[in-house]
Amino acid sequence: MKFVTYIHNGIEEIGVLNSEENIVLNLNQVLGFGSFTTMNEFISICNDELINKIHNIIHSDNIEGISTDSVKLCAPITVPIRSVICLGLNYHAHVIELKDSLGNERKVPDYPVYFSKVANRIIGSNEYINSHKEITDEVDYEVELAVIIGKEGINIEKDKVEEYIFGYSILNDITARDLQKKHTQWTRGKGLDTFTAMGPAIVHKSQLPLPLSLDLYSKVNGEMRQNSNTKYMMFDIPYIISDISKGLTLKPGDIIATGTPAGVGKGFNPPKLLKIGDIVECHIDKIGTLINIVK
Amino acid sequence: MKFVTYIHNGIEEIGVLNSEENIVLNLNQVLGFGSFTTMNEFISICNDELINKIHNIIHSDNIEGISTDSVKLCAPITVPIRSVICLGLNYHAHVIELKDSLGNERKVPDYPVYFSKVANRIIGSNEYINSHKEITDEVDYEVELAVIIGKEGINIEKDKVEEYIFGYSILNDITARDLQKKHTQWTRGKGLDTFTAMGPAIVHKSQLPLPLSLDLYSKVNGEMRQNSNTKYMMFDIPYIISDISKGLTLKPGDIIATGTPAGVGKGFNPPKLLKIGDIVECHIDKIGTLINIVK
Repeated sequence: MKFVTYIHNGIEEIGVLNSEENIVLNLNQVLGFGSFTTMNEFISICNDELINKIHNIIHSDNIEGISTDSVKLCAPITVPIRSVICLGLNYHAHVIELKDSLGNERKVPDYPVYFSKVANRIIGSNEYINSHKEITDEVDYEVELAVIIGKEGINIEKDKVEEYIFGYSILNDITARDLQKKHTQWTRGKGLDTFTAMGPAIVHKSQLPLPLSLDLYSKVNGEMRQNSNTKYMMFDIPYIISDISKGLTLKPGDIIATGTPAGVGKGFNPPKLLKIGDIVECHIDKIGTLINIVK
Repeated sequence: MKFVTYIHNGIEEIGVLNSEENIVLNLNQVLGFGSFTTMNEFISICNDELINKIHNIIHSDNIEGISTDSVKLCAPITVPIRSVICLGLNYHAHVIELKDSLGNERKVPDYPVYFSKVANRIIGSNEYINSHKEITDEVDYEVELAVIIGKEGINIEKDKVEEYIFGYSILNDITARDLQKKHTQWTRGKGLDTFTAMGPAIVHKSQLPLPLSLDLYSKVNGEMRQNSNTKYMMFDIPYIISDISKGLTLKPGDIIATGTPAGVGKGFNPPKLLKIGDIVECHIDKIGTLINIVK
């Protein structure tokens, strides 16, 4: 079950895709109540009963919806409830590839490296990444599995983590490597406008039971760059959610990006950083492909 | 002119203090229109004309309001629009005092060190700081001048910065030093529930023209710990706002904490970290005193 945010007739709506994924159904119409204008509002009231109801409707024969070709998909969450919580250095080979380029703090971490990513508006598939040429020469891509929190929780135990998850999406943690390095903390280099891309959909957790073992890759202009599997995360999803929730209340709609595998542009010698006109594809099996163009 | 958020008869309201600061006036009543429920809504529509109108009303003789003794003050912004943007290492003596305790990246920075602080709900004066004893032994205080953004802007020039500011407040950037160190990026150690305290009010920029030269101090149980002046910031407010807005759109309600002077608990030998029962006072001249108790 895939949830999307889309624009139809100039209005931003939230929807769910049918089983063939070629029709989008307006969620307010499917539910028959409420007037949710954002995915976060829907996530905050969603429960198993609603998911079952939606499941039955999208698998029935007489559903009415709109062709996905006639709407513009946005990021499934366009305005996050707060900055995205991200993990750095969570795939071993990625730590190794960057060990010389970002200073001497780069070693395999004993503990998760959390940072947060300011996102004014998250861009969706087919939206442009601003190259911000006036302030950076080193724009890079990072494909990541994003976990969307579904239920408020604090001090969540590892074996209860799945209860607190709403679903999963693909996030491109776009990064200005030069700003990341010169400001030492990563907020600046990770937080430029259009540097958070997510989508095309959120897949509900009922389709992707833990533990996850999903192939993920990124391509630039069709050339494979990153190619790994989520099972190679050093800190897995139960560990991450349990750990970050110690003393910090997670909220419905919170987005947690789980780190990126090896193959980022800065990891090549010479580096393969993004240029204007580049097409970046971030793919995770069973979720989809997030495509963005650099301008 | 001091703006506050307060609870009266169980309801959270926004208000402005009278000229003696002993009466709080409900902002919706003062304005005679609208039904603002949060400070962020008010900030986003505020302009010079409204400020003049409010100024005239609070200086008139026949104002009706409520004694500040009969309301509970909250943080002036209780739920931020996103994580607080903070500067680390912005007072020279503070960089020096921490140079050995947080690893070898500690040197006087060539560029501002930005990080962001996840804040679920910002605590106000007289609210409790949770000591989170189960996960940290090193809770520390940091008095900081907070700048509240009043107008959306990107690539703001230094000499235009004041136009984009709404006002100023006091922020205690409470920090778990052990978590800050072990996770290397600071999001985790800075982001625990109740670790952002702000208040008691936002002073409108019309009362505090740039450049600012405000004494600020922190005391713990009456003992002076930090004692400096905002003029000793290495990167001043025009520089910071101009720099962080390069490529990043700032929004009304954004909170930017400008760094802390020397005298934090971790800077003493032996360290003077916070204990349960400690009373922390953060004071900035012309703004007020923010008091929190550790529990």
